[in-house]
Amino acid sequence: MAEEIKVALLGAGTVGGGVIKVLEKNAADISKKAGKPIRLVKIFGLKENLPQYKENYGDNYIYTDRIEDILEDKDIKIVVELIGREHPAKEYIARALANGKSVVTANKDVIAKYGKELFAVAEANNCDLMFEASVAGGIPIITPLKTSLAANEILSIMGIVNGTTNYMLTKMTREGLDYNDVLKEAQVKGYAESDPTADVGGMDAARKIVILASIAFNTRFSLEDVAVEGIQNISAQDIKFAKELGYTIKLLAVAKKDKNYGISIAVRPTMLPNDHPLSNVNDVYNAIFVVGDAVGDTMFMGMGAGRFPTASAVCADIMDAARNLQHGDGGRIACTCFNKKKLCDKQNMFAPCYIRMNVTDEPGALSSIAAAFASQKVSLRNVVQKDLPNGNAEIVVITHSVSELNLEMALNLLKVLPVVEKICSVIRVEDKDMD
Amino acid sequence: MAEEIKVALLGAGTVGGGVIKVLEKNAADISKKAGKPIRLVKIFGLKENLPQYKENYGDNYIYTDRIEDILEDKDIKIVVELIGREHPAKEYIARALANGKSVVTANKDVIAKYGKELFAVAEANNCDLMFEASVAGGIPIITPLKTSLAANEILSIMGIVNGTTNYMLTKMTREGLDYNDVLKEAQVKGYAESDPTADVGGMDAARKIVILASIAFNTRFSLEDVAVEGIQNISAQDIKFAKELGYTIKLLAVAKKDKNYGISIAVRPTMLPNDHPLSNVNDVYNAIFVVGDAVGDTMFMGMGAGRFPTASAVCADIMDAARNLQHGDGGRIACTCFNKKKLCDKQNMFAPCYIRMNVTDEPGALSSIAAAFASQKVSLRNVVQKDLPNGNAEIVVITHSVSELNLEMALNLLKVLPVVEKICSVIRVEDKDMD
Repeated sequence: MAEEIKVALLGAGTVGGGVIKVLEKNAADISKKAGKPIRLVKIFGLKENLPQYKENYGDNYIYTDRIEDILEDKDIKIVVELIGREHPAKEYIARALANGKSVVTANKDVIAKYGKELFAVAEANNCDLMFEASVAGGIPIITPLKTSLAANEILSIMGIVNGTTNYMLTKMTREGLDYNDVLKEAQVKGYAESDPTADVGGMDAARKIVILASIAFNTRFSLEDVAVEGIQNISAQDIKFAKELGYTIKLLAVAKKDKNYGISIAVRPTMLPNDHPLSNVNDVYNAIFVVGDAVGDTMFMGMGAGRFPTASAVCADIMDAARNLQHGDGGRIACTCFNKKKLCDKQNMFAPCYIRMNVTDEPGALSSIAAAFASQKVSLRNVVQKDLPNGNAEIVVITHSVSELNLEMALNLLKVLPVVEKICSVIRVEDKDMD
Repeated sequence: MAEEIKVALLGAGTVGGGVIKVLEKNAADISKKAGKPIRLVKIFGLKENLPQYKENYGDNYIYTDRIEDILEDKDIKIVVELIGREHPAKEYIARALANGKSVVTANKDVIAKYGKELFAVAEANNCDLMFEASVAGGIPIITPLKTSLAANEILSIMGIVNGTTNYMLTKMTREGLDYNDVLKEAQVKGYAESDPTADVGGMDAARKIVILASIAFNTRFSLEDVAVEGIQNISAQDIKFAKELGYTIKLLAVAKKDKNYGISIAVRPTMLPNDHPLSNVNDVYNAIFVVGDAVGDTMFMGMGAGRFPTASAVCADIMDAARNLQHGDGGRIACTCFNKKKLCDKQNMFAPCYIRMNVTDEPGALSSIAAAFASQKVSLRNVVQKDLPNGNAEIVVITHSVSELNLEMALNLLKVLPVVEKICSVIRVEDKDMD
């Protein structure tokens, strides 16, 4: 075994630069804790980026735009993939593993989509494929699920795993602002991208919950298994009602296990009771709330993105891979998706639900709406009716726990009722007391 | 390597029983995740306890009151110590390690006091000594500090690590009750022991912060390094003032690093701003808030005690030790106390401070108090004076950030001022905005 463990970096942008800085700043302690010096030797990037990399990170490293310089360098034991997106990141990871190198990545797209294939390559080559940074930035969650909570049967995972939407919802809640105003501000501040679809539409969170659910339930899930809904329809009005009722609206990524009917996975705006620990996770913070049969309720909170938080997770994985290399046990904790997939169907997924609608303000409106719910066995817990300035009325309903199937059928009936002008919002409620 | 990994349990009371149940219930998945079946074979206990153990846990196990039956059984690879207290637990752990067995323990007293000696034995024998369950029950914190956050320079750790006192303070805060009433109720409910000294006096939390600080700062600390103060003097009055000022009072175990002056460790009632994540950790929940130079703010929350949460942590350690045994790398992550101890002195420890005192209501009282503070360079941020029914007045002061030394000298001056009847409370304030 060499006197130091040589590492190469693919991509030295925001996160990659953070990794370089952390490895440099904390080099002495990192070496002691990992057992041997960890030395970053090569940095790969596109030709046009290399001059900037050199300027930023100095002469201690070899810069290259030839991937073979890294993949075929037998001295390099750990490859850190931080170029992002699916291709060629996936191919580089596969080739590095095939060449017997351990790989650390922050790439949720690749892990969510190509995990199965890549873990097989890792296992065949006794290598590690580590990805703590792919979900919730610096928050330790992948490793705790695979180690500290591993004796538990996990019952559910609920996460605030998208900082952009949490920032926006926090701002809407605190200041009573509407979606579009807050989105504009978040874009100006750099918290939302110019095309914010992946964040506000829930797909970013969906990729993350696919990864978390796969580990938690020892089953390989894919994006098609997730019911995805974004926050685009959440209005200041909904947030106001939620407040009045003692709830906070968060974009939650949720994966739950029903002992008899299987797993359900969804990303959705959700009303949480104000005393739920996730309700108090604000701004760009992320948090993951895990319930295990032994441990009970646990929560992991921190920065879900950003240069240094993400670098913290990447460097921890590098250290862990380095320990495994020294002990000759690459792939020490391999893929644990040993269960067959069993997804819960709509008639066995239950939750209370908040529904806000505009109705014509005429006698019998409420009674015909109530009848529509009743016909689908949806029982109501709260009903609030308010007159609107335009002569219509607004009706807000919170149901008791209802199956997705019955909810869907009730909504279909409501949509065609003459008195219903518009169903404005349908938001699931996460409230144990109402189950 | 044998086909299964044999485990023995020392002590099968509350937590031990939980471990047995978790290993039984989740046996299939635990084996798959750990790589091999983990089989509990022997249970050690006092002679008088064995009949009850047998009745509780059945015929699958060998029960013994002879420790040699376990320590000299070469097939047993992992010994789980759950008998508690210092002796003979410490001796059993040492002997098991000396015989080449890995040890898992929940014993904070032994780890806090004899850690150095025991880790040396573990290292000499290439064995693991794991102790996740010794701090904060089921909450993953030892392993995350040693792995997921290992690339960080840790700047501070603040924990609510005692469930009894958190339950009591939560109840005092919610219901405006006084200390003694809440203590009685907690004792009736079984949340506080009949002799509650270790909990309410802060020593239980002190043992835990010694362990956490040693890992976080890679330095072996001991109980003598901790300034300990309990919650016995916290009154309904203090909690009321805290509320008015936007704070929540928690018993915090705190370890902080000052780059120039070293580490300070304390257990103290502390006022936290209401929007601090620890302020919302209530009832018997525990949480540890860790700040790292890369990761920023993180928090780990969950049940800090109880049969199954603690068993969750113990079983995770058993699985991790089992993985190491399979790969022949016992002691994979050993003791990391490689730094020399450097404790911060009183003149370089800073925090704002809340002080409540009763004074005689006469002209010049406030001015002589203000002069006493000023003479020690303690500047005041808030001052509230209220008349009391008995003709005295109550003065509440919150200082700007002040050194422990100056605070101590100011308090000494105040105590001998003729106008000061009594200094009722001195509570540190944890508030970044006031530093």
